[in-house]
Amino acid sequence: MLKGFNYPLTPKGKSTLNPSPPWYYSSDFLSVEFWSHPTAVEALLPSGLEPDPSANGRGDAFFYDWQFSGDNEEYLDPVRYQYREFFILVDALYDGKPVSYCPYIFVDNDAAIARGWTQGYPKRLGQVFQTRYYAATSKAGPALAPGSKFAGSLTAGGQLIAEAVVTLRQAVTDPSLLKQKPVINLLHVPRLAADKQDKPAIHELVQNVPREVKIEQAWIGEGSLTLPICKGEEISDLAPVRCGRGMRASMAYVVDDLKTLKDLRN
Amino acid sequence: MLKGFNYPLTPKGKSTLNPSPPWYYSSDFLSVEFWSHPTAVEALLPSGLEPDPSANGRGDAFFYDWQFSGDNEEYLDPVRYQYREFFILVDALYDGKPVSYCPYIFVDNDAAIARGWTQGYPKRLGQVFQTRYYAATSKAGPALAPGSKFAGSLTAGGQLIAEAVVTLRQAVTDPSLLKQKPVINLLHVPRLAADKQDKPAIHELVQNVPREVKIEQAWIGEGSLTLPICKGEEISDLAPVRCGRGMRASMAYVVDDLKTLKDLRN
Amino acid sequence: MLKGFNYPLTPKGKSTLNPSPPWYYSSDFLSVEFWSHPTAVEALLPSGLEPDPSANGRGDAFFYDWQFSGDNEEYLDPVRYQYREFFILVDALYDGKPVSYCPYIFVDNDAAIARGWTQGYPKRLGQVFQTRYYAATSKAGPALAPGSKFAGSLTAGGQLIAEAVVTLRQAVTDPSLLKQKPVINLLHVPRLAADKQDKPAIHELVQNVPREVKIEQAWIGEGSLTLPICKGEEISDLAPVRCGRGMRASMAYVVDDLKTLKDLRN
Amino acid sequence: MLKGFNYPLTPKGKSTLNPSPPWYYSSDFLSVEFWSHPTAVEALLPSGLEPDPSANGRGDAFFYDWQFSGDNEEYLDPVRYQYREFFILVDALYDGKPVSYCPYIFVDNDAAIARGWTQGYPKRLGQVFQTRYYAATSKAGPALAPGSKFAGSLTAGGQLIAEAVVTLRQAVTDPSLLKQKPVINLLHVPRLAADKQDKPAIHELVQNVPREVKIEQAWIGEGSLTLPICKGEEISDLAPVRCGRGMRASMAYVVDDLKTLKDLRN
Repeated sequence: MLKGFNYPLTPKGKSTLNPSPPWYYSSDFLSVEFWSHPTAVEALLPSGLEPDPSANGRGDAFFYDWQFSGDNEEYLDPVRYQYREFFILVDALYDGKPVSYCPYIFVDNDAAIARGWTQGYPKRLGQVFQTRYYAATSKAGPALAPGSKFAGSLTAGGQLIAEAVVTLRQAVTDPSLLKQKPVINLLHVPRLAADKQDKPAIHELVQNVPREVKIEQAWIGEGSLTLPICKGEEISDLAPVRCGRGMRASMAYVVDDLKTLKDLRN
Repeated sequence: MLKGFNYPLTPKGKSTLNPSPPWYYSSDFLSVEFWSHPTAVEALLPSGLEPDPSANGRGDAFFYDWQFSGDNEEYLDPVRYQYREFFILVDALYDGKPVSYCPYIFVDNDAAIARGWTQGYPKRLGQVFQTRYYAATSKAGPALAPGSKFAGSLTAGGQLIAEAVVTLRQAVTDPSLLKQKPVINLLHVPRLAADKQDKPAIHELVQNVPREVKIEQAWIGEGSLTLPICKGEEISDLAPVRCGRGMRASMAYVVDDLKTLKDLRN
Repeated sequence: MLKGFNYPLTPKGKSTLNPSPPWYYSSDFLSVEFWSHPTAVEALLPSGLEPDPSANGRGDAFFYDWQFSGDNEEYLDPVRYQYREFFILVDALYDGKPVSYCPYIFVDNDAAIARGWTQGYPKRLGQVFQTRYYAATSKAGPALAPGSKFAGSLTAGGQLIAEAVVTLRQAVTDPSLLKQKPVINLLHVPRLAADKQDKPAIHELVQNVPREVKIEQAWIGEGSLTLPICKGEEISDLAPVRCGRGMRASMAYVVDDLKTLKDLRN
Repeated sequence: MLKGFNYPLTPKGKSTLNPSPPWYYSSDFLSVEFWSHPTAVEALLPSGLEPDPSANGRGDAFFYDWQFSGDNEEYLDPVRYQYREFFILVDALYDGKPVSYCPYIFVDNDAAIARGWTQGYPKRLGQVFQTRYYAATSKAGPALAPGSKFAGSLTAGGQLIAEAVVTLRQAVTDPSLLKQKPVINLLHVPRLAADKQDKPAIHELVQNVPREVKIEQAWIGEGSLTLPICKGEEISDLAPVRCGRGMRASMAYVVDDLKTLKDLRN
């Protein structure tokens, strides 16, 4: 019997891209709230999601430095399991209720791609960087203090896809500021068989069900985001009309489930 | 309507990892024939494939420098579509007929991962290198001539996974030397839903059906391959007992179909 | 006695970035002729070089796929010695004679950085790609034929720095088309000592003296080059006013010497 | 007048690999104390340094995650200036006094290579990883607590060069544990001119003079280090006979000077 959650499947299951869930994540992250043209957001939504008129094109961009582990101390193999990520969530409605939808996401690691595709995150490879905070502060980088600035960038396919700066104003004392809407993804697996290339094997709306979400050391302030026009890319259709809140925090959570909301195949 | 063959699906379909087939490939490659312990090969075969007793553990290792394109001059975006690849094929039987099975494969590009997973190739990311041949020959590299040596290497997860050397002896004049058996893969898509983690969405034996296969500038000689023991990896279980023929050639083919042989779910 | 040509110096000299010369190079390359604003070229020239009024801002951009070796079959260690390169040469005068000067150059390998700095090439790291030609032609890439197109790109510091396309028109039959002017570099080694940061240890005009230059399989046609405006970079000051000849060829040469023309320190 | 501290020198000085000093650094790091065969350490020491008989082959291995900046908020361009580093310091005597000497060091960034070579650090490119600590702790990674484990690894030239694990036992309360000996390097700049390849342009013993060194959040415990045998590398000659103290801490300092101790030519 071959073993492994993701490819490759092998006799002992050691070569697999990922151990079976539960999957543990911890990180530092930057986020920037922004408003795109509402029509650009609407054009991106899959069947089953509706634009949220009250959102007016609102979304968030995130830069994460992730530590990943399964149940076997995978955090001691950082070359294989540590990674960086950029993604965008846009506001939408599902069944009339506010949700987030992820149209674009980039990581720098294959295990992260494999986990993402299992959750409906449409991951591609990219080079993601964010300014880091260290306990030994100096002019080399920002302190966790009012006025401090943190930057993030994403490069993919050789092009600069996104850039952001977050300027801290105050530590977060109201935890309600940290609430996130449910993330709904489009889980999509195509078929290569010549007569089925228009009939994906899987094409479903799914809901992520993270557990034990924990946010620490959160600061908020202002954010700015740019999504430059790039050849062969559509992400700049979401280029911000204006930006809003910026945040810098540390986060952890667990993933071990996924909820299918709706099969979108006819 | 969202467009795109692979993730992400977008209004215009430009951001997708891959255009819809047909997919065109051309390359230079090295290959090394080798024999593993037959039990190591047998342990890797999925249900539906049988060991080939006459093969005695035979397999081939390949290093490819690939140029990929779809129908829209994607070869003019090499940063996004050019890639390098290492893989192993082991001999097996399907329905009593000789076939090849791919237990391990590594590439350095996300579009290549996406296409591979659609074909049942269990791709992970790796850094793949091979000595290159140039028309302007010099001591900088090998000529296409008897005694010339070409090397290949694969690094993944920070470890050296495979190394090979091919020594040329003669140009190939008998095209039957270049015949390949059909490649049978295990197409596998897991489910993350808590109650389905043991019930993959797809778990099938599939057969690759490449078209317009073309091999040029082929030379054969001897090959050597090493698969060092690596932490968290099983590939060294295939470590060669002995090695055989080496080859260095240029190749092209087209992919636009996949044949399902058998659904392996109960 | 410690051994090694470049860092690090060790008892056996095996860990050094590079063996001692001679250094052997072979490659495939693309080149694009272009004209910048002459004032932009003039502003880049070091003391000792004069603008060439007849050049009118002319320069060439190059994309190379290099195989490197020393005298010990270093081409069998491609992960350490194979590399890709982008650089620009601008026309200038030295002592009234036409020469080329290299203001910008990028490679993807540390051994190449070390050799370059020893020759006055001001190398930085970048990701360089060019469309490749294979003997097994297909729609996956261009043939060596009229109308075929090859593309090149350079990304550095996360930004797309240069892009080019070369369209082939005819094989080169007149070898005089392949002549290059002498390349004059600014060899510069700074001092970190607090009182010497304005007094470099080395600041010389040097001339490269390549040997056994060989060009094969050369085709010429038209070239196009773009140098987009990038944050923190000056290279786009050379953005082409117009472009001229494009070329695609294979090349080899040997480096084992450097000629100092003039010490530029007062 | 061309501007820039390192290559390339340009009219505005923006393209240079590094701004002029002062250079600011902050980081998280792991360190492991180890003992090599004393003869292996002795063989690595440059002229002017003597083995420290009382050290008995002692050295330290370090894994750093660095944030770098100059005076112009370079920390807001992390893709260009953030980097990771592995290095080894071995105990030695200079003028009868205990010092440290750096025989091997690897980074993943070109600006860091350029700064290092200016200070006598014999840097090569490598992929360096260390387990990270985040304020939002979880099973994804270690807490700052007794028994927590952090791992580090270095890959260069496609080979795994070093691996380490640090197990925390207690927070450091005695600051004398954090004292470092002066770091003495071999500053070496070769000459390529055919008749000077044995006569380096610079070959000096230099002393690093860091300022404002600050260590925070320091924990100590046990360390383990392996330096596997690698093709074409000598670093495994230092393979530990035994290992000692491990540490994990955050650090900052400033570099703006270098002291030449002795010209080693002639």
